[in-house]
Amino acid sequence: MYIRTIDWKGNGIKIIDQTKLPAKLQYLQIRDLSVLWKAIKELKVRGAPALGAAAALGMYLGIKDERAADFPSFYRKLRRVAVYIGSSRPTARNLFWGIERMSAAAVSNKDRPIPLIKKILFKEAMEIIEEDRRSCRDIGHYGAKLIHDKDTILTICNAGILATIDYGTALAAIYRAEETGKKLKVCACETRPLLQGARLTAWELSRKGIDVTLICDSMAATLMRQGKIDKVIAGADRIAANGDTANKIGTYNLAVLSRFHKIPFFIAAPASTFDLSLKAGKQIPIEERGAAEITALFFKRPIAAKGVKVYNPAFDVTPNNLITAIITDRGIIKPPYLKNIKKMIKAAPKP
Amino acid sequence: MYIRTIDWKGNGIKIIDQTKLPAKLQYLQIRDLSVLWKAIKELKVRGAPALGAAAALGMYLGIKDERAADFPSFYRKLRRVAVYIGSSRPTARNLFWGIERMSAAAVSNKDRPIPLIKKILFKEAMEIIEEDRRSCRDIGHYGAKLIHDKDTILTICNAGILATIDYGTALAAIYRAEETGKKLKVCACETRPLLQGARLTAWELSRKGIDVTLICDSMAATLMRQGKIDKVIAGADRIAANGDTANKIGTYNLAVLSRFHKIPFFIAAPASTFDLSLKAGKQIPIEERGAAEITALFFKRPIAAKGVKVYNPAFDVTPNNLITAIITDRGIIKPPYLKNIKKMIKAAPKP
Repeated sequence: MYIRTIDWKGNGIKIIDQTKLPAKLQYLQIRDLSVLWKAIKELKVRGAPALGAAAALGMYLGIKDERAADFPSFYRKLRRVAVYIGSSRPTARNLFWGIERMSAAAVSNKDRPIPLIKKILFKEAMEIIEEDRRSCRDIGHYGAKLIHDKDTILTICNAGILATIDYGTALAAIYRAEETGKKLKVCACETRPLLQGARLTAWELSRKGIDVTLICDSMAATLMRQGKIDKVIAGADRIAANGDTANKIGTYNLAVLSRFHKIPFFIAAPASTFDLSLKAGKQIPIEERGAAEITALFFKRPIAAKGVKVYNPAFDVTPNNLITAIITDRGIIKPPYLKNIKKMIKAAPKP
Repeated sequence: MYIRTIDWKGNGIKIIDQTKLPAKLQYLQIRDLSVLWKAIKELKVRGAPALGAAAALGMYLGIKDERAADFPSFYRKLRRVAVYIGSSRPTARNLFWGIERMSAAAVSNKDRPIPLIKKILFKEAMEIIEEDRRSCRDIGHYGAKLIHDKDTILTICNAGILATIDYGTALAAIYRAEETGKKLKVCACETRPLLQGARLTAWELSRKGIDVTLICDSMAATLMRQGKIDKVIAGADRIAANGDTANKIGTYNLAVLSRFHKIPFFIAAPASTFDLSLKAGKQIPIEERGAAEITALFFKRPIAAKGVKVYNPAFDVTPNNLITAIITDRGIIKPPYLKNIKKMIKAAPKP
């Protein structure tokens, strides 16, 4: 099975509509920036690395028909596109990373003709996609080394093929370990409220022929107590300079449980998820989403009393002291994080 | 608002159909034992104390039209009813407690005429209901003392009016604290897979005018880290002699989180929930329920890949060392539990 989560096709962005899974694998052709914005907001495309690619392609989509006479007016338009895309979801670092990469590519070619700059921007977006593919393979390479034959791995949300261009981050380690002959079991937390674990992770692991068992988020503790979980691997939406990690709500819960039950807890993410401008996790903006995601399952039948107050943070922050190691595309980062993240991510930028 | 969860009316058992909440408050008239069995299995009536009352009324329902000529044949029939009701759900202690109370009442009146024994059994069932009402008031009385003004209490599943005849166990403490002038906030975990927190707890607290916020189970950790939870109070389905407590899946998760964040964790339950024949929690039978509860929300739209493996334990066991105190109808039990449970529950049986 080869699934490409996001691509440029037919003069527009082609994505898998992830809200339709697992019922059907349906693609969406996006030719309008506002449609992309909505697709991001409604999680039709989601997952930090996939959002980086979507943002980069969105930057190109937003300016490809722009008829600016000079660079300053072209760049003003590009920045408007950047601000608009950036307003869709605040937490994922990669979204802003994709936007910044594209802006920087424009600036460093500012003396060229506008049509050429557009071509360069398209090339940059495609390069971001290719880099993501390579990053995921590298994360898989490093992550697989941490996994033993017959391990049972617990994961949350979807940090797999669907969250990236291909292969995933947390799930990349699992895919790679299986490819190298290790036989694993995976427990997928369903991941309320939007059930990415049930809808996406269980689906893609099943399709890849990996032994996956679906559980409710609250059941992880019981499995750990029974000694049935060997490792936890989660993705990341943003990692601060000290290693504090924002990821899907429920990740911090698993980190606490892992510590209590003495189970290794890993984060897997590419370098593009690190935000070295933030000292610690408390500076990471946490998106709060609408109540209906909790009170009405998929906005259908109401499951809570009318008008009940709801708290619905989409992410939480796991403090660095609960993280055993961070699996990246450049290698495995261990504590002390402040020093080692700097060394691995900052000092050796990707060529 | 006065809601009576379970009662004897019109020559049958009248219950609230809890699967219809919060959309509508609908009563169900049960005149057939197999309908009761199904209502218990499908959680139309649920909550350990309510199940004790349902079992007791079910015992009467099952023999009221019995035309046995002598006590041995009458009693054989009663035991068949007992085994049948007991096969509905294995974990809740009160179900078996209700059955045993009724059996014992029959045995101690075995020399009386069968019609009189039937009357005695009806009286016994009604007495169990009245005792439950008093027990809940007493739990409320003791529990409220542990709650301070302006506390935010986190709870899971439904240990309220709907889980008992009236007033509840964990929620009794909250109702009583509010009655005595304390102003509280409650966070209700939605309680996957069957969402008793969203459907029932949020509903009954709202109707009682109590400030309730609904969260997904995985969000409790984040609220605790933010310092927003002062206490956790959960109900119980069965408590072993050493204090190990089986309750709705996810309770153990909250107990671990409470310990990590240094938050008091309380269990609230009547004496009838204690099972002193079991030394420890690992002897408590844990019901495993069907996969569809997780893969299909309310058996409607599928939310997981077809055929995915599912683990769906309905309960978990919280070890006694994670429980700060157990609030009972006889007073508050603190560690060491083995000694103190014996003293409070066994040595001083309720008159």
